[in-house]
Amino acid sequence: MNFIKAVESAWKKNNSLVCVGLDPYISKIPAHLRGLENPLFEFNRAIVDATSDLVCAFKPQMAFYSALRAEQDLLLTINHIHENHPGIPVILDAKRGDIGSTAEMYAKEVFDRYQADAVTVNPYMGGDTLEPFLKKKDKGVIILCRTSNPGSRDFQDLESNGERLYQIVARKASTEWNISNNILLVVGATFPEELKAIRSIVGEMPLLVPGIGAQGGDVERTVTNGKTQNGTGMIINSSRGIIYASQGDDFGEAARNAAKMLRDEINRWR
Amino acid sequence: MNFIKAVESAWKKNNSLVCVGLDPYISKIPAHLRGLENPLFEFNRAIVDATSDLVCAFKPQMAFYSALRAEQDLLLTINHIHENHPGIPVILDAKRGDIGSTAEMYAKEVFDRYQADAVTVNPYMGGDTLEPFLKKKDKGVIILCRTSNPGSRDFQDLESNGERLYQIVARKASTEWNISNNILLVVGATFPEELKAIRSIVGEMPLLVPGIGAQGGDVERTVTNGKTQNGTGMIINSSRGIIYASQGDDFGEAARNAAKMLRDEINRWR
Repeated sequence: MNFIKAVESAWKKNNSLVCVGLDPYISKIPAHLRGLENPLFEFNRAIVDATSDLVCAFKPQMAFYSALRAEQDLLLTINHIHENHPGIPVILDAKRGDIGSTAEMYAKEVFDRYQADAVTVNPYMGGDTLEPFLKKKDKGVIILCRTSNPGSRDFQDLESNGERLYQIVARKASTEWNISNNILLVVGATFPEELKAIRSIVGEMPLLVPGIGAQGGDVERTVTNGKTQNGTGMIINSSRGIIYASQGDDFGEAARNAAKMLRDEINRWR
Repeated sequence: MNFIKAVESAWKKNNSLVCVGLDPYISKIPAHLRGLENPLFEFNRAIVDATSDLVCAFKPQMAFYSALRAEQDLLLTINHIHENHPGIPVILDAKRGDIGSTAEMYAKEVFDRYQADAVTVNPYMGGDTLEPFLKKKDKGVIILCRTSNPGSRDFQDLESNGERLYQIVARKASTEWNISNNILLVVGATFPEELKAIRSIVGEMPLLVPGIGAQGGDVERTVTNGKTQNGTGMIINSSRGIIYASQGDDFGEAARNAAKMLRDEINRWR
């Protein structure tokens, strides 16, 4: 199924715009999991099983696995979601971007090796570097637009011919590159005005929105400024606020409660 | 040793600005290697051993390993270079870029797990996302500036307040971020005028220059426009033109001849 259709279906089924970010630190997962063969996977499995009816997507962050030689944990996690929670798509947060022949290899990595349903990519190198991802029509390609970190101002806010760089990215993504209707954009919750500006450029295009919670994004302003007319259009990610809601043996239940609270808080403003 | 000092030493010792890109396709390596346990490593080892006295660096491209579940081949390759050719630094071409906490994990991946001497990074997300790499003072941080692909025009050429984006990146990199003198820039050989403009902004800062050979960059214009006053300042990468010079059993010797020809052609214009 086309990634965006899968997300729409999950929005509806679970009445939720929440995405749980699976960015596990080995030092922060419960002690009894650390000795197991695939501790990051065991941790993720518990989080996923505890929250899958409350979310519209899961988003593992590649660096947390590749830094620790834990490729197998990542693969097991994605397989587990696909097999046991088939309605919930998986976004592999990898922020890849390279010349065509190399981008082909990255597309192979995320879509063939890991079987992710979508990937985050970096637009700095230009439209041709996104083609190897975009041509996978059923996969989602989520392009960095206005990121959630303070330094995003350095370049993304630069103005050229009356438009800021992040606006130019949004315009090209929605009017030039979106042939297969499989593009989404990353827009940080920490910049609600920019979120509003981007929504006005891209119409109904779904946005992946990090930055709620630990990074300081405000739920009301995020939802009000970013939603589409039917009250959807966003995949709102929370990682630390959900997966580390408790570091004790009750971490699954605590994650469930945190996901439910965030879902309900978001739904108040839809 | 500081990465830039290591490159300077290799430029001098081998009288060479050539970097060999280790981007092996399993389908293009000689048939007799394909059945071995670590075929990409075996291929790389032969190329490295045949060319190490003719180059200033080796540059494996991460995607070619991660797409094939060949992390071990990458690790073995880097170890082999460090142990057997200790004067030649290794650049891991990964084009990473993410918010601080994730960039820390990517820095761990490239510098701790793989023990690379330098990494390529993407500036789109801003200066704060580069800090986790930059604070490793002995490691090289090679920031994408003007890339070699045609689509690099999409954003890198945008003009803001009289400067193009790639010029702003070059200026910030050389005047704001280079506290530890460990920054280099990526500038494609396919855009010699831009190479000249960047050299005038960054002074003696070394440039990693891809795009010679298969991508169409011209050696004379590249060297003339990109060199520093002492005839160095560039790490000129060639991948396909060297590693696939022959696909027969003589591939090591052919790679050596191709590397030697490129080195000598470059040296004509220094």
